Amino acid sequence: MVRCSGPHDRIVMTSRVRLARNLRNFPFPGWAKKGDRIKAYDAIRPAVESLPQMTDAFSESMDSLTALEKQMLVERHLVSREHAAKTVGSGIVLNPDVSLCVMINEEDHLRMQALRPGLQLKQAWQAIDRVDTDLEKRLEFAFSPQLGYLTACPTNLGTAIRVSAMLHLPGLVLAEQINQIIQSVNKLGLAVRGFYGEGTEALGNVFQVSNQMTLGEEEARIVERIDKVLAQIIEHEENARGVLLESKSKMVFNHVGRAYGILANAHSISSKETMNLLSLMKLGVDIGMFPGVNQVLVDELFLISQPAHLQRQFSEKLGAEERDILRSDMLRERLKAVSRPITPPPPGKV
Amino acid sequence: MVRCSGPHDRIVMTSRVRLARNLRNFPFPGWAKKGDRIKAYDAIRPAVESLPQMTDAFSESMDSLTALEKQMLVERHLVSREHAAKTVGSGIVLNPDVSLCVMINEEDHLRMQALRPGLQLKQAWQAIDRVDTDLEKRLEFAFSPQLGYLTACPTNLGTAIRVSAMLHLPGLVLAEQINQIIQSVNKLGLAVRGFYGEGTEALGNVFQVSNQMTLGEEEARIVERIDKVLAQIIEHEENARGVLLESKSKMVFNHVGRAYGILANAHSISSKETMNLLSLMKLGVDIGMFPGVNQVLVDELFLISQPAHLQRQFSEKLGAEERDILRSDMLRERLKAVSRPITPPPPGKV
Repeated sequence: MVRCSGPHDRIVMTSRVRLARNLRNFPFPGWAKKGDRIKAYDAIRPAVESLPQMTDAFSESMDSLTALEKQMLVERHLVSREHAAKTVGSGIVLNPDVSLCVMINEEDHLRMQALRPGLQLKQAWQAIDRVDTDLEKRLEFAFSPQLGYLTACPTNLGTAIRVSAMLHLPGLVLAEQINQIIQSVNKLGLAVRGFYGEGTEALGNVFQVSNQMTLGEEEARIVERIDKVLAQIIEHEENARGVLLESKSKMVFNHVGRAYGILANAHSISSKETMNLLSLMKLGVDIGMFPGVNQVLVDELFLISQPAHLQRQFSEKLGAEERDILRSDMLRERLKAVSRPITPPPPGKV
Repeated sequence: MVRCSGPHDRIVMTSRVRLARNLRNFPFPGWAKKGDRIKAYDAIRPAVESLPQMTDAFSESMDSLTALEKQMLVERHLVSREHAAKTVGSGIVLNPDVSLCVMINEEDHLRMQALRPGLQLKQAWQAIDRVDTDLEKRLEFAFSPQLGYLTACPTNLGTAIRVSAMLHLPGLVLAEQINQIIQSVNKLGLAVRGFYGEGTEALGNVFQVSNQMTLGEEEARIVERIDKVLAQIIEHEENARGVLLESKSKMVFNHVGRAYGILANAHSISSKETMNLLSLMKLGVDIGMFPGVNQVLVDELFLISQPAHLQRQFSEKLGAEERDILRSDMLRERLKAVSRPITPPPPGKV
């Protein structure tokens, strides 16, 4: 798991760089007939598995995974919802610490990504660049000298890179500055999305920032540019928290206290409410309201509160109502060890 | 204070019997000129103070009370909101344990009431009947052999009695049976009102049931009739709780747990939210979710969370927002000693 610490990890949850690649002389997965798709899959999978970075990898065809396993991969942001719906002729290869992940026959033949905790875009880029270089020795990619890497969707054409970071921005949300920030970031040519990516809500005050353009700019420059924008967003989030704690500390304590009170005492709670409340509790940990409590606990609760992770612990298939009850049981149990939040001392800059 | 225990006090908070009386040959307070009102006041006050039941009484003219003191009397249901707005020529006499209270020159010259904790309507009636008998030796009341006691408002004519009980009915509210019960009670000629009496909301699932007719029925029979209706409401509330705990226990635990979680951890909370959550916590105490916690604590919090009782603890005048913060500070402090609710064992009848 990548849920360990990294630079700026109070605000940047994960850094991620994804490359899309397609095989020369094979139709794109969306156009391919089943036979062609399987042929491409059979060419790609051993090549990926043979990478030194993929020693002892988890490598599976999508049809060999249960619905629950697929949903868990979605909740961990390792496969897209679309990919989870695929069956034979599509697959996934994951390295043991889940810092590298390759989807085979998603929208493109290969969607490979590197993940890092905290703000580590350059490291993620270097890791995935090495995978790409190594794979290029094993597979022949569709590449045009004018256009660059060819992709199923023209928006990915060129570098076919997507650089993204998952940001926890409760300060900007509470200070009601988030929409302004999103607009500014959009103007810089970057996209801001919700928790589960494109077209999803910003659950738990988590936002995903990524590049939109893939053509006409070198990968390293794209990474650098996003890195700079993220540094600014981090500064804005830190300022927002600082100002809130100076001028509206009671409001912040109120949100965090209530969030904890509900999480630790509810007997039924939805996934959505849980994420939103855990976000506030995470903020509380950041600002010293839970001495002795590690961010890791909250991050773990964030993960295991999601439907499939919760379902995994039970043998029978659960309905939403049952899941809400079991989620609350799990949260009450896990939060027994966490004492009520304290009122932190007046802030310096947090 | 009457916040001690009495029969059925999990459901019946207080029993109360009020009599309205007017002096013969004096205009009703609403019609009287200031001079007449003062004359009536000067006749009534010493008569009330001289009652053996009123030894060491708190006896004050309304103009000698501060706005805060008046508001506190309203919050304790000892004077009406209308009476609290009065000044010179109106007053209040309270016995030391606050089980007897006489308003002078409210709507009538005398509004005297006896209060008892729990279901003790007969005892309250006997107590106020003795006060009435004793006062009749000292004052000449306006009385018509045909109509009975004369009152400023014809709806009180005759016995001029109002028999009422304050009921805590969270079970009927959660089971969504409360409106049905209110309608049935109304059909029996009784009124159901909110927390602060006529025209007010049912804050904290507290309802006041009282007679509407005062003419043509003996006092003792009115008391008896309401007593019977209350016994039925109590049974319905107990049944509702029993059914909820058998078939929807998680829902009840969820409400109680969340209520406690918010009360014990908020940093700002309104009077209204507090009462609604305390009502749920009170239910939680009743059904064994807070072992070792006494109902008295919750009843006390109910009282001291109200605006004037809260304001009393601070020298400067507080705005609503400041009160919400101080209320939450008080609640967090008081609930530090109360452990998180437990999941009670499966119920017998509760």
